Amino acid sequence: MSANKYIPLPVIKRLPRYHRFLGMLKEKGVDRISSSELSRQMGLTASQIRQDLNCFGGFGQQGYGYNVVMLYDEIGSILGVNNIKKAILIGAGNLGQAIARHMTFSKWGFELIGIFDENPALQGKELRNNIIMPTADAPDFCEKNSPDLAILCVPNTEEVAEMIEKLVESGIKAFWNFTHIDIKAKHPEIYVENVHLSDSLVTLCYQLNSDIE
Amino acid sequence: MSANKYIPLPVIKRLPRYHRFLGMLKEKGVDRISSSELSRQMGLTASQIRQDLNCFGGFGQQGYGYNVVMLYDEIGSILGVNNIKKAILIGAGNLGQAIARHMTFSKWGFELIGIFDENPALQGKELRNNIIMPTADAPDFCEKNSPDLAILCVPNTEEVAEMIEKLVESGIKAFWNFTHIDIKAKHPEIYVENVHLSDSLVTLCYQLNSDIE
Repeated sequence: MSANKYIPLPVIKRLPRYHRFLGMLKEKGVDRISSSELSRQMGLTASQIRQDLNCFGGFGQQGYGYNVVMLYDEIGSILGVNNIKKAILIGAGNLGQAIARHMTFSKWGFELIGIFDENPALQGKELRNNIIMPTADAPDFCEKNSPDLAILCVPNTEEVAEMIEKLVESGIKAFWNFTHIDIKAKHPEIYVENVHLSDSLVTLCYQLNSDIE
Repeated sequence: MSANKYIPLPVIKRLPRYHRFLGMLKEKGVDRISSSELSRQMGLTASQIRQDLNCFGGFGQQGYGYNVVMLYDEIGSILGVNNIKKAILIGAGNLGQAIARHMTFSKWGFELIGIFDENPALQGKELRNNIIMPTADAPDFCEKNSPDLAILCVPNTEEVAEMIEKLVESGIKAFWNFTHIDIKAKHPEIYVENVHLSDSLVTLCYQLNSDIE
């Protein structure tokens, strides 16, 4: 089955979670799973899962459950993870290095083709099969190599805000944004996923504090 | 003004963002900001901001705008960031090391008092003023030192699922969870913030892919 164009947006938004979950089952060697077991493990209702998965063919057989590998591959194909897109990383400090080393980019549809840092001590060093280049070279690199995604693991400075403008001009279409700079406000056409680590930490702080009072 | 107990939940959920934003203004040396300027920068409506900030006194003066430092401190006090709570980190691999080095824990209400890893090559090494200890020692450490929060930067294994059970038994009240293990399903009373990095990456993959098709 090829990707169905008419999947409702709320289902689309749940797909990364299904994909991640089925990937874990696949790694564990699970062949088949019932919608009720999947619902128990995922914390969704079984009818929700049946409805969602019916949107693209289902792969469920009454009494046999879902074929884990087929479903994983199908959702992966809808998400486009086999259509590898090029990504660059701006910032090879602690966070950037962790992202470069920790993430299996190819599993999520990306290949890291360039890493940049403004620290001369890092430039020229190797990280995940890339030689770290000066950040100022990133726009030129983008014009030559046409990456789609820029991963921003840098501090929230004016220079970074200016670099974002240059990257957009050089053809970057999406940002995985670990900074607190609001890219979407200025560029509504660009895809942005913000990861605000401190927001989740301070939420826990608030919850624990409410307990204490 | 002391923390107001009757702040509506939707406002509470926006507080980390206000706090982060005001912190950035404070660092830039901005003394006062109008609700319209704050709204422009934060992408919220000015009336939304006035309503939100009125919930805890406001600190706005007609024609003068908000006092950035006072508002930052007040929101920080509601969030409890000055009431430092103890945290431990499980997993000192790439991601754990980045989290330990990258996050200014004290700014978000926490102190990192113990770091654990099951890799003997890491044990005994120093990381952010902590000597890395064997993961198996974590439950004992929790019983003796009563941390509130455990940060999980480990793979999604059965052993980690078992360790989570032991940590809950040893008094851990909150998890900052970088694994894909669903802690809340088994422990609804525990505070959990999940950070699923791959979900946001694969969302970008999907969006870029829809463009291509």
